[in-house]
Amino acid sequence: MRALLASLVLLAAVARADEGMWMPQQIPDLAPRLAELGFKGDAKAFADLTGQPMGAVVSLGGCSASFVSADGLIATNHHCVVGALQVNSTPERNLLEDGFVARSRAEELWAGPGSRVLVTTSVRDVTEAITGRIDPKLSDAERGRLLERRVKERTAACEKKPGIRCTVASFFEGARWYELAQLELQDVRLAFAPPGNVGNFGGETDNWMWPRHAGDFSLYRAYVSKDGKPAPYAKENVPYRPAHHLAVSPKGAAEGQLVFVAGYPGRTQRLRTLREVTEQMEWSYPRTVRRNREMLQLLDALSKDSKETKIRVSARVRGLANSMKNREGVVEGASRGGLLQVKAAEEQALVAWIAADPKRQAEYGAALPALDRIQAEKERTRERDATFEALAQGSGLFDAARTLARLAEERPKKDLDREPEFQAREWPRLKEKLERLEKTYDPKADRALLRYALIEAAALPQGQRIAPLDEAVGLAAGAPAEESARRIDAFLDRLYAGTKLQEKATRLGLLDATPKALAARHDAFLDLFAALRPFERQLEDARYAREGARSRVAPVYARALLAKAGGLVAPDANRTLRVTYGVVKGVSPRDGLVYLPQTRLAGAVAKHRKGDAEFEIPAPVLEAMRAQIARRAGPYVDAKLGDVPVDFLSSVDTTGGNSGSAVLNDQGELVGLLFDGTYETIASDFLFDREATRSIQVDSRYLLWFLSDVAKATNLLDELGARVGTAVAP
Amino acid sequence: MRALLASLVLLAAVARADEGMWMPQQIPDLAPRLAELGFKGDAKAFADLTGQPMGAVVSLGGCSASFVSADGLIATNHHCVVGALQVNSTPERNLLEDGFVARSRAEELWAGPGSRVLVTTSVRDVTEAITGRIDPKLSDAERGRLLERRVKERTAACEKKPGIRCTVASFFEGARWYELAQLELQDVRLAFAPPGNVGNFGGETDNWMWPRHAGDFSLYRAYVSKDGKPAPYAKENVPYRPAHHLAVSPKGAAEGQLVFVAGYPGRTQRLRTLREVTEQMEWSYPRTVRRNREMLQLLDALSKDSKETKIRVSARVRGLANSMKNREGVVEGASRGGLLQVKAAEEQALVAWIAADPKRQAEYGAALPALDRIQAEKERTRERDATFEALAQGSGLFDAARTLARLAEERPKKDLDREPEFQAREWPRLKEKLERLEKTYDPKADRALLRYALIEAAALPQGQRIAPLDEAVGLAAGAPAEESARRIDAFLDRLYAGTKLQEKATRLGLLDATPKALAARHDAFLDLFAALRPFERQLEDARYAREGARSRVAPVYARALLAKAGGLVAPDANRTLRVTYGVVKGVSPRDGLVYLPQTRLAGAVAKHRKGDAEFEIPAPVLEAMRAQIARRAGPYVDAKLGDVPVDFLSSVDTTGGNSGSAVLNDQGELVGLLFDGTYETIASDFLFDREATRSIQVDSRYLLWFLSDVAKATNLLDELGARVGTAVAP
Repeated sequence: MRALLASLVLLAAVARADEGMWMPQQIPDLAPRLAELGFKGDAKAFADLTGQPMGAVVSLGGCSASFVSADGLIATNHHCVVGALQVNSTPERNLLEDGFVARSRAEELWAGPGSRVLVTTSVRDVTEAITGRIDPKLSDAERGRLLERRVKERTAACEKKPGIRCTVASFFEGARWYELAQLELQDVRLAFAPPGNVGNFGGETDNWMWPRHAGDFSLYRAYVSKDGKPAPYAKENVPYRPAHHLAVSPKGAAEGQLVFVAGYPGRTQRLRTLREVTEQMEWSYPRTVRRNREMLQLLDALSKDSKETKIRVSARVRGLANSMKNREGVVEGASRGGLLQVKAAEEQALVAWIAADPKRQAEYGAALPALDRIQAEKERTRERDATFEALAQGSGLFDAARTLARLAEERPKKDLDREPEFQAREWPRLKEKLERLEKTYDPKADRALLRYALIEAAALPQGQRIAPLDEAVGLAAGAPAEESARRIDAFLDRLYAGTKLQEKATRLGLLDATPKALAARHDAFLDLFAALRPFERQLEDARYAREGARSRVAPVYARALLAKAGGLVAPDANRTLRVTYGVVKGVSPRDGLVYLPQTRLAGAVAKHRKGDAEFEIPAPVLEAMRAQIARRAGPYVDAKLGDVPVDFLSSVDTTGGNSGSAVLNDQGELVGLLFDGTYETIASDFLFDREATRSIQVDSRYLLWFLSDVAKATNLLDELGARVGTAVAP
Repeated sequence: MRALLASLVLLAAVARADEGMWMPQQIPDLAPRLAELGFKGDAKAFADLTGQPMGAVVSLGGCSASFVSADGLIATNHHCVVGALQVNSTPERNLLEDGFVARSRAEELWAGPGSRVLVTTSVRDVTEAITGRIDPKLSDAERGRLLERRVKERTAACEKKPGIRCTVASFFEGARWYELAQLELQDVRLAFAPPGNVGNFGGETDNWMWPRHAGDFSLYRAYVSKDGKPAPYAKENVPYRPAHHLAVSPKGAAEGQLVFVAGYPGRTQRLRTLREVTEQMEWSYPRTVRRNREMLQLLDALSKDSKETKIRVSARVRGLANSMKNREGVVEGASRGGLLQVKAAEEQALVAWIAADPKRQAEYGAALPALDRIQAEKERTRERDATFEALAQGSGLFDAARTLARLAEERPKKDLDREPEFQAREWPRLKEKLERLEKTYDPKADRALLRYALIEAAALPQGQRIAPLDEAVGLAAGAPAEESARRIDAFLDRLYAGTKLQEKATRLGLLDATPKALAARHDAFLDLFAALRPFERQLEDARYAREGARSRVAPVYARALLAKAGGLVAPDANRTLRVTYGVVKGVSPRDGLVYLPQTRLAGAVAKHRKGDAEFEIPAPVLEAMRAQIARRAGPYVDAKLGDVPVDFLSSVDTTGGNSGSAVLNDQGELVGLLFDGTYETIASDFLFDREATRSIQVDSRYLLWFLSDVAKATNLLDELGARVGTAVAP
């Protein structure tokens, strides 16, 4: 009876999801909880970034990934290699549609400029170096600039080692700072990607949705120079041999199984104040949803007229649609889950906890009111500030002008004096951006989006005007909308007629130009940005002042939160390496409905619709699936499902940036790749929901089955040690 | 071990749904199966239409219902009393929106013209009387007319008894004929209806969907003259005292429970041939979907311009949308379930079974080829025939003209010589239709829909033209569409300018007019129909010939099917009284997804959205729900759910017409009201899916909770014997 009781208690504890995108070094402290969940391994292993399994976990910059062979093969999501597929596609050979299989290493395709693999090799606490000994008499803006300078200095010192990329990042609202060093491999090649309607099966319709049937997997390979050093792409480079790689499990994931996810989650905002979150929910997110919807309508209309335009804006369309659906999901989930009410109650409890003790009151009491004041000041000009930012976001030419002008301004300075965005370490990325515009620039779309932003600028209220823009275009507060639109159109006629920035040679030729040389060109876009630059500088000053002010009190607020919680707390995600754990399991997202934890090939076939751009499975894949379903047996069949599993749900705590993350079983084997979260849990970026949160992963068996039965990629299966009938290499 | 095995076998048998909308007299033969499912009652009771429980089951004509008190209270769906709510609504008092509760019998509201309650009192086999001794030399058309005449004769003889309405209906494709006698109660009054956003909660969005949270219940009461006889509405009438009524169970339905549904399912087509079903799937249903969508767009555009129009076309819009969603669901479900492939295999097996035995071949061999020929002949002119029918369906004025002209033509005949549609027994209904037009006629909508039909007529191919229409409008095969449209518009100008049929007094004044009197009016619509009448007569002749031909072979085909099945088979639904049984249970409608069998108040509250026309729960209801959810206890709380249950799924076999049907537990108590099927099972009208079929019912506890906690209708609860704390009257 006592044993039964104990196991019941355990079950109740296990049943709920645990919050936390943990720093690897925090995992050893979680050992008791992991043991409770049945973990028999050594939790300390996760803290060793150069050991197994963490040594195999990498970043692609925006996506996560992991080494899966001794010869540098890397598993990630299909949606993380879309850029590589785009770069290597031609009108005759559409890799986005058809996928790609390298039958030998010689066939592997360079992933293109900007592609890289980052292997975190060390994490050091630099809190004292960043925040120690600051003159209390500094102004807010001076304080902000000092912190930034210290970050730049540490970064530069860390990057002295060749082939190393460093990040100094704030944790717990600036209460802690860590320096992360990453080995940067620059020659990345595509080894395998499934057809688009496997990797992205279900498209926008299924995005964030369950049940899901996407084969969102692909394989890269990292290359280095012959002497084993990171090097730019060169034909004669050789495969990188990582110290560690993960075994791809042919057993996949089963319901109830404990899994770990190691990767690079982007941003969460769970430690933000009520007032900050309220702005996101009630102003910023709804605004993004509205703007993205309107911009998508503009791009959709233009795409209908031109296939060329459609291709050029496809990545942007996908980005706008994705963030729109995300924001909508967050706002909806927040409203459903009563996010603001919960936040309000939590904040009230914190205030009461602080007030209950004079010592606490003295230490923490001023922080929250100060944060609220800073936020209120920010909100005063938010329409104007967001509208100004939208200019560069909307127009590739405006962004190019800004990049060239800012580079010209910053280049003469010492590197440590430059704005971080324009330090020498960023120059290759900036150059690549100016190159990439060649593929994504569409004159009609560029102009339509810039026009959209200008119409917004024209409608700004008195007191939030962008004066130099008003002057350049001829706008004024309160002017009739039609009159403004007419002036904007006339201005855009002049603007696009008076620029040469749409020419790649021009853009690249100006990369090293001086401000004077730029001015002498009388390029309309460069002139426009020059006119706006003093205004942008004001915004920068305000931002430094805000960040300086925030850095005085936000860490105090975070320390109060941590002290009140009284135990282990995971910091908000900030694009650094994290580990989360959870259990493979379904969920009831709504009354009367249950999501089962796994899907299977038969479900993919049931969704197949001939002629449907999102749901038409390519004929050979469909045929192989049908044959497999009929067979009901084979090395990748899940006995319980009687079919090859496709995707699965787990209660791990992840967010954007975790895409491509290795999902590990308690043996440290790769059992899946994380690629999404369910729509119901998007709001977890703000408030973790222990009942409803679910991430979506593709099962390793689907990858292996696809390589075996569809791609017939025996070379890759052999390398993964996963060829049918052979044992998996440890 | 043996016992375990036996129970496993039993479980497997129980797990699947049983096909069959059974005739009550078939139920005793199902006793062994019912015992297997745990039924401990007497299956023979279902065959006694004048006993308990069947004596309590009634039809509302199009909907099903049941007596639930000794004083004639009737439980049915909210969506079955919409007409009564409409008739009794005023601009000041919108019952559709607010619902209605009669606090005393004096407050009960007449349900309006056309409302009636039909109690089936006997079912007699009249196969010999209808199909016996037919001269084999009759032509197909003569045979068709003879069968119709015999049906009319039997009906007339049966209806000699006062207050009795009779139906002579074909079963098993005309292999059997039954005469059903029904007591017709004409004074029906509304006792209770919930607000629209309870009864129809979720609107079109949730229609056919699960999870569902509709409180689709309402209460009528039947009245009779003081001497207990059926009588038209009169204030001094008294409540009807049915011989039997159902106890409304305060225990509702639980997962795994055996339930019976008794009601009047409309039409299924499971015994149809492959070729007949193929036409439905590939031509008729897709055509309806396309046409309804286009007509809805027309009506939607007109409704945007005018609130008046919106109200007038609301019932039609709902009808078009509902049948569109139904047809789409059938086609989608049929495609997903491989309906045509299954049908083809079944038909092939039947042909092989027949061919395997010379005696069978001699008896059945000719039937299927003959049916295929009849169907092929029908398909030859289907575009034309369907387009002609659409004229009256589209335009209320055209339909009125047709009704008046046909009445004038038929009235001089002896009643038995009249077309069934225009026999004396139908006159009140026809008059009501002409009266009702006053509420639904909208000149713009009427013209738009007639124009839509005429555009279709203009596009008919050579060889399928409607010659008198071509002549009247000036259309010709192959004419340019723009030219046709111009002529149609000019014709419509003349048509609507030249009619007075939009005036109620004119329509009703012509109810007794002679053909000559109608012609003398020179009303444009009457003249148009007169010009088309000879053509319509040709269509009628073709229909009689087809039905005559079919009546020779369809019964043979059905007998072959029955002989091959070798056991009990339920006939297709034909609007007569049926009983079906099943189990309360969930289902997995798609890979990765499970529908739980029950929903609850908390799920309704979670769907509530302020400002959403379909999902805004009225404030007092919402408040009561929230209080109940917080309380977690009370007489109607389901212990397992910890909440008041709302709707539930069961595997009973039902279709349109079953709406409002009593759902009985094995004690014969009412545990719910059936109101819908799930979208995934709509195709069951053609092929029953033993795995996926689910009907949707509202739990009796939601009704009782609503009457108690929201409506505070103690008078009704007392009458139901279900007032909190009191025992339920047996």
